Amino acid sequence: MERKVVVLSVGDFVPEEAYADLFNYAEVVFYGRASPDELRRAEVLVTFRVTREDLQVMPNLRLVQVLSAGVDHLDWPSIPETVTVCNNAGSNAIPVAEHALALLLAAAKRITHYDARCRSGDFTRDRITKVLYGSEVAVLGLGPIGMRVAELAKALGMRVRGFARRPREEPFIDEFFAYPDVKGALSGADFAVLALPLNKQTRGLIGYDELGAMKRDGVMVNVGRGGVVSKPDLIRFLRENPEFTYATDVFWSPEISQDSDIAALPNAIVTPWIAGAFGHPRVYVEMVRHAVSNVIRYLRGEGLRNVVDRSDYV
Amino acid sequence: MERKVVVLSVGDFVPEEAYADLFNYAEVVFYGRASPDELRRAEVLVTFRVTREDLQVMPNLRLVQVLSAGVDHLDWPSIPETVTVCNNAGSNAIPVAEHALALLLAAAKRITHYDARCRSGDFTRDRITKVLYGSEVAVLGLGPIGMRVAELAKALGMRVRGFARRPREEPFIDEFFAYPDVKGALSGADFAVLALPLNKQTRGLIGYDELGAMKRDGVMVNVGRGGVVSKPDLIRFLRENPEFTYATDVFWSPEISQDSDIAALPNAIVTPWIAGAFGHPRVYVEMVRHAVSNVIRYLRGEGLRNVVDRSDYV
Repeated sequence: MERKVVVLSVGDFVPEEAYADLFNYAEVVFYGRASPDELRRAEVLVTFRVTREDLQVMPNLRLVQVLSAGVDHLDWPSIPETVTVCNNAGSNAIPVAEHALALLLAAAKRITHYDARCRSGDFTRDRITKVLYGSEVAVLGLGPIGMRVAELAKALGMRVRGFARRPREEPFIDEFFAYPDVKGALSGADFAVLALPLNKQTRGLIGYDELGAMKRDGVMVNVGRGGVVSKPDLIRFLRENPEFTYATDVFWSPEISQDSDIAALPNAIVTPWIAGAFGHPRVYVEMVRHAVSNVIRYLRGEGLRNVVDRSDYV
Repeated sequence: MERKVVVLSVGDFVPEEAYADLFNYAEVVFYGRASPDELRRAEVLVTFRVTREDLQVMPNLRLVQVLSAGVDHLDWPSIPETVTVCNNAGSNAIPVAEHALALLLAAAKRITHYDARCRSGDFTRDRITKVLYGSEVAVLGLGPIGMRVAELAKALGMRVRGFARRPREEPFIDEFFAYPDVKGALSGADFAVLALPLNKQTRGLIGYDELGAMKRDGVMVNVGRGGVVSKPDLIRFLRENPEFTYATDVFWSPEISQDSDIAALPNAIVTPWIAGAFGHPRVYVEMVRHAVSNVIRYLRGEGLRNVVDRSDYV
């Protein structure tokens, strides 16, 4: 039997041991070095994004294994329904959850505020800090990132509310709110962490009223996708509520610099989309390893994990 | 029997319920509003600091219950040996440990670095971040703050080394190092958290060689006392090792502004001594409550907690 062809588009710096297991199950070719015939025969593509052109030169594609947890950036209408798309949820949940906690604590303890002041020689104490222990956090999105955030929040002695599509029981979640009751989840909360995918249900889910449901000196952290929050509503809310903090690693525009208006606000804390793959090469290598393990499940005829429901996007 | 006199020097904003239990056991007077006779009869003083003059007007003092965890700021030679001094260890361990984690994560995830850059409109990614999970942290000082830090570090999936005066078994500590083997504790560590008191044993404990024992891109967090670290050695080390980060809430000089040379270094992260009492009034009120509970033990003839060994200071 002819071996199936798997095309990897993963970056040259990734060490072979991250995908070497694939060699036991398939013919592995590298995007950019693959011949037209190899591409024509390709059944699986491992990549961050798949273009219309990719799909034309790979007409026999059956599986696109995306390297990122989010798949909102794909050109969904161009992807035939015969192609299964899998996201890579869980592949970088630990570093991204750590980044969410870093942003939350930076806001709670006013680290960026005081470090900038002290750096300029001003050591006066003009802002009070927040204690996490005994406070209440709403975790929106209970995939691997949100669940890890909930676990860490619980270890810090916080009361944890969870928000997800469908009600479910989870460890570390004290109270559950199901879609569409996002206002219930946020109501009176000290902290919120957004770890939601960006899709038809979540785009613009957080608007002015939802922000206003939280405590006036609340902290909202976003490590999911910018578009879950309405940008005009957020800017208005942050201008009107100087005690509120929005701490984010994610943005609206493909070019972050187009969102520099947010970064300039005194009550925003901003990192340039580094929680996951762009934070450390090792995190990216782990993401490749995780993606490859799902492709091996496919090649062995086992059940795929993280199959995306295209109706969420098309 | 005449009731004992307890003098409180705790700040007017502290609500009565923080110390109301004392009324059942003693005559309570407020420093500044107490008569000379009341001061003369005073047996207990609850305060941040006790001066030579205080001791002269309160000749019958038997117990000074300090509000802070550290007692290095006291004028020890002026305190008669007949006066027992208790520190307030544990009274703010949770917020201070949270602050330590905030500083550690700000350094690991480069939050202050990237926030400042993004604020100026530069969204390029020039620094990699560190993943806490699987990394190694040395916790120096295993009082209530250090133990809480160890617990949180363990929840984050870190390997935890402990350093304290005498070997002991503790939960959350994977490997123990006893005084004076501070270099062993720091050797090859990714992170270190200093939660040590400042006394005769610890002053200048961390010098150039100790800093150099850690990884070159290591992170040292200090929430104990500045003087535990040699300032000239630290400045030299930070200048020579731009990838190393020193993140601190504590300083050397009584006036923090005299330590502005540290805050100006690009690889320092600085907050102006806000982890505990100066972070939030509620934290301070909790410190008063905790101190008062020990005074009540004294008044009831029960064993005192947190008795300071004056030979550590004189």
